[in-house]
This record gives sequence, C-alpha cells and structure tokens, in this order.
Amino acid sequence: MSVVETFDAMWAELAEIGRGPSGGYRRFAWTPEDRQLREWFAGECARRGLDLTEDRMGNQWAWWGDPDAALAAGSSGVAIGSHLDSVPDGGAYDGPLGVVSALAVVDALREQGVTPARPLAVVSFVDEEGARFGVACAGSRVVTGAMSPERALGLTDEDGVSMAEALRAAGRDPAGIGPDPQTLRRVGAFVELHVEQGRGLVDLGVPVAVASDIWPHGRWRFDFPGEANHAGTTRLEDRRDAMLGYADLVLSARHAATRTGCVATVGKVAVEPGGVNAIASRVTGWLDSRGPDADAVRATVAELTERAGDFGATVTQESWTPATPFDPALSDRLRSVLASDAALSVPVLGTGAGHDAGILATAGIPAAMLFVRNPTGVSHSPAEHAERADCHAGVAALTRCVADLVQGPA
Amino acid sequence: MSVVETFDAMWAELAEIGRGPSGGYRRFAWTPEDRQLREWFAGECARRGLDLTEDRMGNQWAWWGDPDAALAAGSSGVAIGSHLDSVPDGGAYDGPLGVVSALAVVDALREQGVTPARPLAVVSFVDEEGARFGVACAGSRVVTGAMSPERALGLTDEDGVSMAEALRAAGRDPAGIGPDPQTLRRVGAFVELHVEQGRGLVDLGVPVAVASDIWPHGRWRFDFPGEANHAGTTRLEDRRDAMLGYADLVLSARHAATRTGCVATVGKVAVEPGGVNAIASRVTGWLDSRGPDADAVRATVAELTERAGDFGATVTQESWTPATPFDPALSDRLRSVLASDAALSVPVLGTGAGHDAGILATAGIPAAMLFVRNPTGVSHSPAEHAERADCHAGVAALTRCVADLVQGPA
Repeated sequence: MSVVETFDAMWAELAEIGRGPSGGYRRFAWTPEDRQLREWFAGECARRGLDLTEDRMGNQWAWWGDPDAALAAGSSGVAIGSHLDSVPDGGAYDGPLGVVSALAVVDALREQGVTPARPLAVVSFVDEEGARFGVACAGSRVVTGAMSPERALGLTDEDGVSMAEALRAAGRDPAGIGPDPQTLRRVGAFVELHVEQGRGLVDLGVPVAVASDIWPHGRWRFDFPGEANHAGTTRLEDRRDAMLGYADLVLSARHAATRTGCVATVGKVAVEPGGVNAIASRVTGWLDSRGPDADAVRATVAELTERAGDFGATVTQESWTPATPFDPALSDRLRSVLASDAALSVPVLGTGAGHDAGILATAGIPAAMLFVRNPTGVSHSPAEHAERADCHAGVAALTRCVADLVQGPA
Repeated sequence: MSVVETFDAMWAELAEIGRGPSGGYRRFAWTPEDRQLREWFAGECARRGLDLTEDRMGNQWAWWGDPDAALAAGSSGVAIGSHLDSVPDGGAYDGPLGVVSALAVVDALREQGVTPARPLAVVSFVDEEGARFGVACAGSRVVTGAMSPERALGLTDEDGVSMAEALRAAGRDPAGIGPDPQTLRRVGAFVELHVEQGRGLVDLGVPVAVASDIWPHGRWRFDFPGEANHAGTTRLEDRRDAMLGYADLVLSARHAATRTGCVATVGKVAVEPGGVNAIASRVTGWLDSRGPDADAVRATVAELTERAGDFGATVTQESWTPATPFDPALSDRLRSVLASDAALSVPVLGTGAGHDAGILATAGIPAAMLFVRNPTGVSHSPAEHAERADCHAGVAALTRCVADLVQGPA
C-alpha cells in the first residue's frame, strides 16, 4: 500500500472507536475506549517494528532507533505525534490527525529510503483534553512536572471517581506516576501536527501552517450561592436564586470579551438541587478565557470576578497557562524546509488552543507545531473536519520536516 | 403513648429514610427509598388495624371502616393524607407531615372515643413531586385520568429509565396502571394537611390555615440551539453559543415576573456537550411559572417565548394546570369547625404549590387543605421546618375537622 492508502486505512479503523450516535466521539482517559485506542496504537507501532515504551504517566513512545545510544553519542531523538482522546462529543481530527500522520511519516521516510541519523519516536499522549478529570494535558503535565502526581491522582470525574481509582481500574499502579526526566531527555525536538481549530488557513487559502505560540489561557470556577426554596410559593423578594448570578456571568463574559479582544466562554454548569420546581441553592459555572494578550485576559477575568462578587460568588482559578512561544529555531527550521517548496506558502499562526507541545515547550523541550487547514474552523464538535487532500498534504509536510530533522544536525 | 408521643415517634422513624449528607431527602418514586417508605406506611396502618389497599397506580389507602358498605348505604368515606416522596434534597415536612398527622388523627379519634359514622381512610400518594419522571402528582393524575397510563409509562428519568421499566424493577405490572373510579368513588371528602410553603401564616402569627385555591401553574421546556466549537479558537463573531440565549431567559424570566405579579423560575438546565473548553451546542432550560392570575402567567410565558425565539429556541409546554379552587362547602365547614375554638383565628390562604388535593378537586372530588405554619417560608430545601408545637396544633385541628366529617352528614 502507498503512504496515502495506509493513512486512509488507519483513519477508517480509528473512526469506529468511541463514536456516539451523533457521530461525535467520547474518548476519555482510562476508559474502555481509551484502552482500545492504546491497543490500536500499540498494534500500529508493532506492525512498523517500532520499540514501544511508556513513560511514568502512560504516554506511549514508539522509537525507531535507540534514543539512549544517541544521547550517549551526544545527539538526541526527534518525536512526532499528538493524542487520541477527545472532548465530550468531539471531532475525529483533534489529536488523532497528529498521531495517524506521525505513523504515516514513518512509512513515508521508509518509502523514500531515508535512514535516520537521529532516532525518531511516534508519541501518543494520554488525557490531553482533560474531558474526564478537568485538567487538560494531564499526560504531559505530569511527566514534565507541571502537575504533581498528588494533584493528578486526587482529581475526580463526574461520578466522583478519582484518577487514582481510574488508574487502578485500568490495571495501573497510581503510585508509579510522576515526572519522567529520563524519557524527556531523549527528545531533542518535538513536532506536533494538529488540525487547525480556527479559520486562519482557510481564510488564507493555504493547507499547512507553522505555529508561533499558544495564547495565554485559563479556567476559573465560579460558585454562586443561593437558598433552595419552592419555585411556586416563594415571593420574588424573598429569593436567593443562584441561577441569576450565573446567568449574569454568561452574558457579562461575552460582553467583556468583546471589549477586551479576548474570548471568554461558559460551556459547563452544575446546579443544585436541580429540580424544575426548586430555586437553585448553588450554581457552579466554569469560565474559559484566552487571548493574544495575557493582561487583557487577566483584566477580563478580574472584571467578571468583581461582578460575580456582587452575587456572593467565590471564584477559583483552576488553571492558568501564560503565553507559550514555540521554539523559534525549530519553528524557523520547519518553515525554511517547507518554504523551499515554491508551491507552498507557509504562514505562521498563533492559537488559542492548548496542546501537549505547549507543555513540553514550557518544560524547556524544543517544540513546534504544524497546523492543517480546517475548512470551517469548527472544532470540539462532530462537525470538525479536514479535507482528505489537506490531511495528505500535512503528512507530506511533516515528512519533509522530519526528514530534515533526523538527517541534519540535532 | 399519647397522640403527641406517637406523632413524635413516627416522625423520628421517618427522619432516617432517604436522608442525604446535607440533611435533605432524596425520596424518589419506585426507588429503594420509596419502597422503605411504603413499607413503613403499611406497618403503621397494620399497627392501627386499618385495611390497606392499593389503587391502580399504587397509591396506598388504609381504611377504618368499610367504604363500599357506606356507598351501598348512600354515604361515602372521608380520606386524609398526603405523600412521602420528596424533591431532590428536599425537606422533611413537605408531604410526610400530612401522612404522619393523618395517622395521628386516627389515634386521637380513638383516644377521644369517636366512632366514625363514615369510614375514614389514611392515604399516601405516590410520586407527588415528580422528581424522578418530571410530572408532579403522577399518582393522583393517573388514577383520576388526568394523565393517561401511556404517557406516564413513557416518562423517563435522568438515566433514561422509563416509568414502565421502573415499575417492573419495583416488582409491579405496568399494564395494570390506569384510572381507578372504583377507588375514588369511595371518597366523599379529602382533606390534605400540608406544611405551608410560604410566609402567609408566620406573617399573621397563626399556626393553621384553610386553603382557598391553588394558583394556575405550568412548566415549559426551552431548547436553545447552538454550534459546538472550540472555546479557545473560535472568534466571537463566528460563534453560535446556546448558553447566551439560556442566560437571557433566566434574567428575562425574573424581570417579566416582577412586572406581571407572577413567579417565574429556571431551576434546571442541561448543556451539550458540557465541556469547559467547548461552546454549548444545545442548552435546555426548564421554566416554572405560576401566579394568582392565569392570564398574567400566560402573558409572562408568551413574552419569554417570543424573546427566546430571537435565539432560535423552541418552547414546549410540559404541563399546565388552571387555577384550582378547593371545594367551597367543605372548606367552609372546616373553617367553621376550627373557628368554633375561640382561641384560633383561621385565615384562608391561596398557594402557588401544586398538590394531590388539587388534582382530586379538578376530578370533581370534594377536596380541601389545611396549612401548618412554616417559620421561614422555606420549602423544597433541607432548611424546610415547622415547629413541633405547630405540628401538634395541626394534628389537633385536623382531628377536630375529621371528627366533624365522620360523625356529621356526608
């Protein structure tokens, strides 16, 4: 089979795993679907004769060549890949496109007769979306030390199951998780290919871009207090209805973001007691805010926090990631390689989405990203899409970049 | 034991069933907690030598005397009682106070040596709150024919379990449910004692009231459409965020109700996909609205429906109950009996809460209610309360009313 045929076959296989009635995916960390994905990945690596290893968080690294020998010789490895998990009712491309493309790159290099001077890994990170335990990039955060194992193990899902319990249920030892400098030392360069999650490329009419940076972004929990009471018999003036403050937050977040040039979203809410005929005694809303300018994001959240204070809310920052520039030298190198094809204009785009590549960059590992055109900009949705020709163009672009990296200087 | 001691003992026993960590109750229809409550009721009836029967919906009727013999003799029975189920995290009093008081009335009548000329039933209605399947007063609605068995059996709970499946799981035959005129014909008068769910009595400084009517009330489901997308990468101008329309509904409902003299509440919401980093593709909010004037309630909902239409929402009326006056002759009779005690001022109060007594009244059965003072007006909450002395006053008042009904003319 050609590289393109192999890509298409992998894509078709993967499409079946964890798909719901809407066509969207529910692929959450340490679930049966996750196990199926891990086994699928292991099978593809075995088929290519790659040496599959797991780091101390269960991220899967499949090596072509010996990274420790390279280290001993003063060189280092190159890693490519992404993640296979999804948000609730997510699309097929966010994550899997990078993993499948990375596997196809191995095939393409071999078809082209490239013998890597540096070892090459295909990596599949676990729990990138944080859909189950609430913290995105949990896999890369733990191995880089950005999140302590104690915090990770104590995170709970909607059913109150802790990550520690989920790991045990998946047959893993929670005590084993933690920072893994030994694994990360092997990686002299990491390149993550990802479907674009905005309209940058489609508006430019170009299939592939190099990433410049990840916007500063964070999550905040707003807890609005109220008093449970009967919806039919309690006078309006006697009510303390937690839903009112929540509704104000939703609308204020949109207004504030419009003014500050950020984005701000409330996509998740929990209500107690949650009965049709009961006034809400507690409403928790989660705010996601990001933007090119960290001060503007901070100002947006500060304004919303003050306003929510009028409703008695307490606000908890659940995560905050400053602006993350990708490695300039690595990014420039990718761009020069791609720009040497006269047919290809290669824009450089920032993004509001977090990625494992950003976590690795923050940990000091040279990291870069390629984006593949998204014809609608829609992501985190069953409607997320990339044209097949653009996926193939992404594989070709990543192949050229990796050929340069594994044959050139570290 | 005295009547008061028996009341207190029953109250203490019941307090243990279905209580959660907050002190609130989760007593939903056809659950293990519900079964415990049914068995507790059956035990109390057996202890008093009452003949326990069930109607075609599983409502429990315990007779002192033979109602069919009374019918044959041209008379009819008197029924007193309420329900034992609760809203999510509900209080101890809403429902159980009426059942426990009714059982205590049997004790009091016997202590006073009253021999009823008319048979007396203590009744415990099933599924009054509709907490599990969404329709309040399901038990009385089905036996009176106000809700068809087909509709009832097809209702589903949050886990997608239908009432038919829940009945089967509880060891019952779903095919058996339906209107039960034979049971209802026995009831010449129904009196439901209930904790007040507002501040009418506490503001008047009086322990017991007679009800005048139940406000017209209904439930409407608002479905707001959106488009799932990435919360970080989707420009504000490209978004279709279903949460915005929902938030507007919450705030508009409060504003509209303030103007129209109704109450309007959004206490329940469901969001898809519900991820922190995903724009909502669908938000469903449930509106509860009531008021003394049906036209004002209708106008409130019409205004909100039109406004939600601007957000593309579809609005579905899930229930509508017109104003329900209680039986004037029966209510007057209760008031005269109580007013003959010079120490007792007996106000007449309307209420925004639905009750089985209202369903029976609508079905043409002479029905009335007594309210017992609620010191804060709080209901549908763990903080719901009635002073013990007021509970005992309620038993005494109901005893006097029932003594008159069962000894006087039908």
